[in-house]
Amino acid sequence: MSFQAAWETRISGIGMDTSPGALLTDLYQLNMVQAYLEAGQTATAVFEFFVRKLPPQRNFLMAAGLEQALEFLQGLRFSDDELSWLIRSGRFSARLIDYLSDFHFSGDVHAMPEGTVFFANEPILRVTAPLPEAQLLETRLINLLHFQSLIASKAARMALLAPDKLLVDFGLRRAHGAEAGLLAARASYIGGFAGTATILAEKCFGIPAYGTMAHSFIQSFDDETAAFEAFARARPKDLVLLIDTYDTEAAAGKVVTLAPRLRALGIAVRGVRIDSGDLVALSRSVRRILDEGGLKDVTIFVSGGIEEETLLSFVREAAPIDGIGIGTSLATSSDVPALDCAYKLQEYAGQPRRKRSTGKATWPGRKQVWRRYDADGHMASDVLSTEDDVQEGEALIVPVLQQGRPIARQRSLQDIRAYARTQLERLPRGFEGVQSRSSYPVHVAARLQQLAAAVDLKMR
Amino acid sequence: MSFQAAWETRISGIGMDTSPGALLTDLYQLNMVQAYLEAGQTATAVFEFFVRKLPPQRNFLMAAGLEQALEFLQGLRFSDDELSWLIRSGRFSARLIDYLSDFHFSGDVHAMPEGTVFFANEPILRVTAPLPEAQLLETRLINLLHFQSLIASKAARMALLAPDKLLVDFGLRRAHGAEAGLLAARASYIGGFAGTATILAEKCFGIPAYGTMAHSFIQSFDDETAAFEAFARARPKDLVLLIDTYDTEAAAGKVVTLAPRLRALGIAVRGVRIDSGDLVALSRSVRRILDEGGLKDVTIFVSGGIEEETLLSFVREAAPIDGIGIGTSLATSSDVPALDCAYKLQEYAGQPRRKRSTGKATWPGRKQVWRRYDADGHMASDVLSTEDDVQEGEALIVPVLQQGRPIARQRSLQDIRAYARTQLERLPRGFEGVQSRSSYPVHVAARLQQLAAAVDLKMR
Repeated sequence: MSFQAAWETRISGIGMDTSPGALLTDLYQLNMVQAYLEAGQTATAVFEFFVRKLPPQRNFLMAAGLEQALEFLQGLRFSDDELSWLIRSGRFSARLIDYLSDFHFSGDVHAMPEGTVFFANEPILRVTAPLPEAQLLETRLINLLHFQSLIASKAARMALLAPDKLLVDFGLRRAHGAEAGLLAARASYIGGFAGTATILAEKCFGIPAYGTMAHSFIQSFDDETAAFEAFARARPKDLVLLIDTYDTEAAAGKVVTLAPRLRALGIAVRGVRIDSGDLVALSRSVRRILDEGGLKDVTIFVSGGIEEETLLSFVREAAPIDGIGIGTSLATSSDVPALDCAYKLQEYAGQPRRKRSTGKATWPGRKQVWRRYDADGHMASDVLSTEDDVQEGEALIVPVLQQGRPIARQRSLQDIRAYARTQLERLPRGFEGVQSRSSYPVHVAARLQQLAAAVDLKMR
Repeated sequence: MSFQAAWETRISGIGMDTSPGALLTDLYQLNMVQAYLEAGQTATAVFEFFVRKLPPQRNFLMAAGLEQALEFLQGLRFSDDELSWLIRSGRFSARLIDYLSDFHFSGDVHAMPEGTVFFANEPILRVTAPLPEAQLLETRLINLLHFQSLIASKAARMALLAPDKLLVDFGLRRAHGAEAGLLAARASYIGGFAGTATILAEKCFGIPAYGTMAHSFIQSFDDETAAFEAFARARPKDLVLLIDTYDTEAAAGKVVTLAPRLRALGIAVRGVRIDSGDLVALSRSVRRILDEGGLKDVTIFVSGGIEEETLLSFVREAAPIDGIGIGTSLATSSDVPALDCAYKLQEYAGQPRRKRSTGKATWPGRKQVWRRYDADGHMASDVLSTEDDVQEGEALIVPVLQQGRPIARQRSLQDIRAYARTQLERLPRGFEGVQSRSSYPVHVAARLQQLAAAVDLKMR
């Protein structure tokens, strides 16, 4: 079920209401809209969302969050309650309140499809709308696009680092709030994870949910084997036993002893999970104990503080690990918890605009990104220019909303995920080892450079 | 308006619905509850939430999020829709569904008041309830307590670093989703910030909202002075002009030229904002331009990539900066985007329990923290022991819910913030310079050590 649908059906209790309403924005957006209306600044504006520069820990990014962003744009309304609160605040003009009471987004949106790999200064979304409209939606639009792109990018790196492992999002408890937990499940699924521990993500998005047991389950029994057996009887399907509560190797031995008894009941132990200690060493000793006990089919799942370096070590050491649960480092993108992104005015009333603030200058105009591939289909270089300066290569930015309405049916999450996978397969050569320091060539076309110079001459 | 009230009145459109429902949890919680019911493991359990160890970048933490956690506990129900979805998933027993359909939290909660300074291994919340209940709420409880404690701790550091500046939360756009943005405003207000740019935080929590203008506003006009004037006329109150879109010093000169014209209209320029460049150097040159132009009362507000080091440099260089907007580093706690926290079973059916997993061992039993102060009222040391091993000092953990109901009226946000301020004033000597590496003494009482040893002997 989509976010939008969930929102609309909240009253009947069907889904999660993730709409925080129209006031989840910065006060200055309302200030500016009031001043735009007052000054008659209501001509067509073009804003673009992009990442200014990649952090040293990322050599590519993956676009995500468009579906929620479009639902936000299409659903943005001011309720009577919100309007009366604004009036009572005493800050705003009657003209602003009138404008907000009729508000709906009427503009066009162009964007890179979710799952597209992108680089610094490349717009992944463009809004073309009357200036007050395009301004008003800035904060939440950034909030939605930034977070999912951040997490999809992190997930994609992890999927590249551990290509043969089953990766599962375990991030909800340390994610920054409810929405972060839910949307991290979605973004990491796009980036290549197999599923999530968050059951709501299965309900909302159809993402496969995975779950075993916690240490508290084991601890609540006086005896570890009794805990295993009780769990197996109650939840026989896809049985995974947590074996590190007291002594991991001893617990693996207990699993070996217990397995025939469970088999007699028609219950197969599918896997064991190790959540602490030296995971490489423990996976080896546990594998040996299981194999010698005739449990060659029992898989080993690990979790607990997994970072990119941990994944690298698993592969380097050829640890007998089948699946990995990753929480904090994924759901908070802990090595890079935010991207240096912006939503900037690039054109107003037909005139290209740019900001020249130190270190934050932007490229003016409505832009497109053309991508060229080498003979084997790997990304070779991108060209950034104005939309009308057509270049060789694949144009990455496509229309998605026209006059506030969707142009095509939103792709399914499965399709987005499959597209993301092909994007990762087509990464520039050398980028599949995600720790490469090489940077991908993004050329700024001569026409765009000339336009920027012309704008600078004019805006003094 | 409280979260809970907002939630309950969502249907009438009054507030923000931040309840993501009962399925915002890990699948394994439901698996375990099913197994507990099956095995008859329904006696009283005691779980505690604590931070295992402080990251090197933190020498104290501040508890926050209790209000939302208690609202979650009191409001947790499974809707018909959620129950039918669970049934349709085919994963669960009829007994589990029955149990969930009647679910409400009936246990006791003890906690440190919000705003309390705490350290590693000190529980800030304890749940005493039948095991399935106490288990079921784990994920969201951690999600709520972790995030706000993370942000309040970060905000408190920043408030200590820049004690004489007006600090404003600018974090919504880079916060991890809607709830993170809103709750970061609350947590940072507790930690000592003066307000937030997020208008919904004023509506939901009464936190003062601040707002100026964005570069897009300036850029949409052909002339910077015309932009300033249009904004001033439309939003004359608390007028703050953004001066770094093109050339900061030139724009400061334009403000000087414009000010008399505005004064004639009865409009006072209250401040200017600088969002890029060398903020220390620019604040000095802008201060000089304003002073020489007779605008000594116009304040200087800065923003843009502010970190702890930036705040230190402002103070060290005595930069003439009055207010500071802080976004990403605050709302994502970017240097420490997550804490190593846990919610662990410490007692079941009257028997103390502990986990012994490598590096993750816990102290068993129902615990209390006693805090001792020096002669001047500064924190001197804490003692951690079992609740019944009464120690000298202030007992920090107090009862908040009894049989699922609040014991006392929740303190107001203003009271919490004032209490947090006194906590920061009473920090251990040397901790007000937040970069001190010293660590605060938390003693584990002999009784608790003996108990842990006894539990280890028993649980093999």
